[in-house]
Amino acid sequence: MWFQSAFREIYMSAFRYARRAEVLGDSVYDHAPGAIVLSSGLAYPPHLPDVVREAMEAARDHGTQTLQYGPLMGLEELRDEIVRFVAQDGVSCDRENVLVTYGAKSALDLACRIFVEPGDRIIVAAPTYMTALQIMRAHEAAFLDISQDEEGLDADELETQLERLRKNGERMPKLMFDVPDFHNPTGITMSENRRRRLVAMAEHYGFIILEDDPYRRLRFEGEAIPPLKSFDENGHVIALGTVSKILAPGLRVGWAIGAKEIVDRMAMQKADGGTNPFSQHIVADLMRSNKMSKHIDDLSAEMRLHRNAMVEGFAEFLPDAKVRKPQGGYFLWAELPEGTNAEAVAARAVELGVEVSDGRLCFPNETSRNHLRLAYSFVDAKTIRKGVRLLGQAYDELKAQA
Amino acid sequence: MWFQSAFREIYMSAFRYARRAEVLGDSVYDHAPGAIVLSSGLAYPPHLPDVVREAMEAARDHGTQTLQYGPLMGLEELRDEIVRFVAQDGVSCDRENVLVTYGAKSALDLACRIFVEPGDRIIVAAPTYMTALQIMRAHEAAFLDISQDEEGLDADELETQLERLRKNGERMPKLMFDVPDFHNPTGITMSENRRRRLVAMAEHYGFIILEDDPYRRLRFEGEAIPPLKSFDENGHVIALGTVSKILAPGLRVGWAIGAKEIVDRMAMQKADGGTNPFSQHIVADLMRSNKMSKHIDDLSAEMRLHRNAMVEGFAEFLPDAKVRKPQGGYFLWAELPEGTNAEAVAARAVELGVEVSDGRLCFPNETSRNHLRLAYSFVDAKTIRKGVRLLGQAYDELKAQA
Repeated sequence: MWFQSAFREIYMSAFRYARRAEVLGDSVYDHAPGAIVLSSGLAYPPHLPDVVREAMEAARDHGTQTLQYGPLMGLEELRDEIVRFVAQDGVSCDRENVLVTYGAKSALDLACRIFVEPGDRIIVAAPTYMTALQIMRAHEAAFLDISQDEEGLDADELETQLERLRKNGERMPKLMFDVPDFHNPTGITMSENRRRRLVAMAEHYGFIILEDDPYRRLRFEGEAIPPLKSFDENGHVIALGTVSKILAPGLRVGWAIGAKEIVDRMAMQKADGGTNPFSQHIVADLMRSNKMSKHIDDLSAEMRLHRNAMVEGFAEFLPDAKVRKPQGGYFLWAELPEGTNAEAVAARAVELGVEVSDGRLCFPNETSRNHLRLAYSFVDAKTIRKGVRLLGQAYDELKAQA
Repeated sequence: MWFQSAFREIYMSAFRYARRAEVLGDSVYDHAPGAIVLSSGLAYPPHLPDVVREAMEAARDHGTQTLQYGPLMGLEELRDEIVRFVAQDGVSCDRENVLVTYGAKSALDLACRIFVEPGDRIIVAAPTYMTALQIMRAHEAAFLDISQDEEGLDADELETQLERLRKNGERMPKLMFDVPDFHNPTGITMSENRRRRLVAMAEHYGFIILEDDPYRRLRFEGEAIPPLKSFDENGHVIALGTVSKILAPGLRVGWAIGAKEIVDRMAMQKADGGTNPFSQHIVADLMRSNKMSKHIDDLSAEMRLHRNAMVEGFAEFLPDAKVRKPQGGYFLWAELPEGTNAEAVAARAVELGVEVSDGRLCFPNETSRNHLRLAYSFVDAKTIRKGVRLLGQAYDELKAQA
C-alpha cells in the first residue's frame, strides 16, 4: 500500500523528496503474472487496428513534420480532424480551441498544472476514475466528493456543499472532474437535465468542468446524450478526449477542447517538447479515412459481447453482488453485500487467477469497503466468464469463513 | 514579454489560474514567418533518418506491445539498448536504472516533480538552457546561479555559495542542472577534474546533479570526457539523455538514468499513460542496428560544416562579437561589446530576415544584456552564412545609431 511505503521511505531514503513524491508512493504497478486481467481498461488485443500503411506514410512524410519537433498545440491537420469528430456530438469549436496531448490523462494533468494550488478543492463523484485521482493528488488537490444517483453526479448535494463552503468563507472549488458517459467505474450515463444544470452551476460558482469522455462512442444500446461541452457557452467546460479506447492506447494521442485562453496556457505547461508528431500523423490519417469509424463499430460490437458475458457471469456465479448493466464503455461496478471486505475478496481472487480492483481505490476521501471495479475490455467473453467464476469462488470462500 | 502578459491576465481573465500558469505566460511561441531560423536547436531536415522499415515493424508488432499501453518504465528492449549505449561512455547501469521518457525535457520535469517544492533552490550555470529554466520555473523553483569558466561551472564559487547558505541556516539546494558537454548555450565542455569535484560536492552537500547530455555524440574534434554519471558511486547523479539531437526530435524518446529508488518515483509521476511504445519500438530498432551510429557519424560531419560556417560568418560579418568555437553540439554563444543591447539587435535582425535568441532568456536571475544565442543545426551552411551576414548588418545599423 502506498501509505506504508511512503512512511518507510521518509526514514530510509538518502534523498530529500518533495511531498508529492510521497503522495504517490515508490513502486510501479504490475499485473499479477498469469492472472486473467479484469482490473484495467486495456485494449482488446485482437481488435487493435492495423496501422502499417499509416505508419509508413508518417515515416515518408518525415522531412516536413513527423520527425521534427511538432507545434506545442499539436499538428493542425489533427486538430482539424478533432474539430470534425466532436462536431458529430454537437460540440462546436475551432482549431484554436483544440490542444493535442498524450491521452486524456496528460490533458487532465495540464489542466491541474494551470489551475490547482496545493489544497485547492476539486469536485469529483465518489467513486470516480482511480488514475485521475492519482494525477490530481500529485498536484496536492483536496476533494469535494459528491454522490451519484442514476442520473449522474448529484447536483442537489453539490449545491448544498457549495453553499456551505461559500457561507463559511472557505476556498471555493476551481475544478470539477467527471466522466459523464459510461462512468468509470459505475457505468452510469448522466442525464441531459443534469448536464445542463451542472454547466449552469459551473458558471454560477465559477468552476471549470473537466469532462472526461473516452468511452462515448462505445455505446451498445440506447440513445446518446450530448456532451456537457455542447451546453457550454462561456468556456466553463474543458472536454477531454482520447483515441486510447476507440483506436489504440499505444498511440498516446488525446486532446483538450476549451477556451483558447485556457488551452494556450495548458500548452505552455507541456514539458515534453510537444506531443509526438509521428503518432499524431497516424491518428489524423485514421480519422480522415473511414477506418476509425469502422473500427469503432466493430469494437463496440465486441465490447457488447464482453459486457454481456460479465453481467451474465455475475448472475450465475456471484448473485449476491448488485451490478448495474452499463450501456457502453469498459467497466462494471459491483456492490457486494454490506460488511463484505472487497479487498480480501480481490486478494483471494488473485490467488485463484483473476485480477480485479478493490473499489476503495476509486474513492477520494471516505471509502466504501464492499465494492469491486471490473473491466471487460482486455480478455475475450469466454475468459471473462471464467474470471467471474473464479471471483465468485473467492467470494464464496470468504463468505463461508465469515 | 511573459511578465507583461501575466500582469494583464491577472486583471482580465474570468478564470482563476494557479501561480505557475502566470509564471509561464499565455502565448505559444512561433517562429517569425520566412525568417532564417538560427534561434532553435531544431533537427537539420535533410539529415532526418529514414525510418520507414522501422515504422512498419512497429505497426506489425502491434498485437504484442506497440499499440497497447506500455509499461510506465518503458519497453524492456529499449531500456536494454540504452544500457548498452551509455556503457560506451563508461556509465555502468542496469535496466532497472533506466526510465524512458518523452525526451530529456520530460525527464527533467519528472525529476522536478519528485524533488522540488516551491522556493527550493536549483543550482544552475548562468547562462544555461532556456527551456530547462522554464520547466524548473513551472515548479516555482528558485535558482542559485553560478558562473562558468573554460572548465565549466565554477566549483569554487559554488562552494562559497553553499557554505554561505549553510552558515546562514538557509534551505540547501536539492538539485543541480547542467549541460557538461557542448553546453547550451555557451558550448563549453566541462573538464574531468571539474566533473569529479562536482560529483564529490553533490555527495557532500546532499544534492542531486541532473546531467543533461543531448549533444555528447556530436563531437567534431578533440577527446571526449567521461560523463559525470560515470564518476557517481552513490546515486547523486541522474543522467538525462535523448535521441532528439542524434536521430529525430519527432520520435519524442529520451531517458533518465539514476538510482532505482529515484527513477521508480519519477515513473509514478508520469501522468501520460507511459511513453509512446510505438516510438520506443522504432528507437530500439534503430539503436540495435548499425543505423543509429552511422547516422550520428554523418550528422556530426554535417554539423561540423554548419559550425564552421557560423564561426567564419562571425569573423567576417560581426568581428566585434566574441565567440567561442564549440567542439561539438548545436550552439554558439556570442558576446557583443559591453553596452550593446542584444535584444534590440535580435529585434532588428528579425526585420532583416534572421531569427536569433536574446541571451537574456538563458539567465536565471541577473541577466547580461549583450549576449546572443545562436543555433547552427537547422539550416545549411550557406544559409547560416547569409543569416550571420544579416545579423552583422543589424548590429552595424544599431551601432551607427548609437
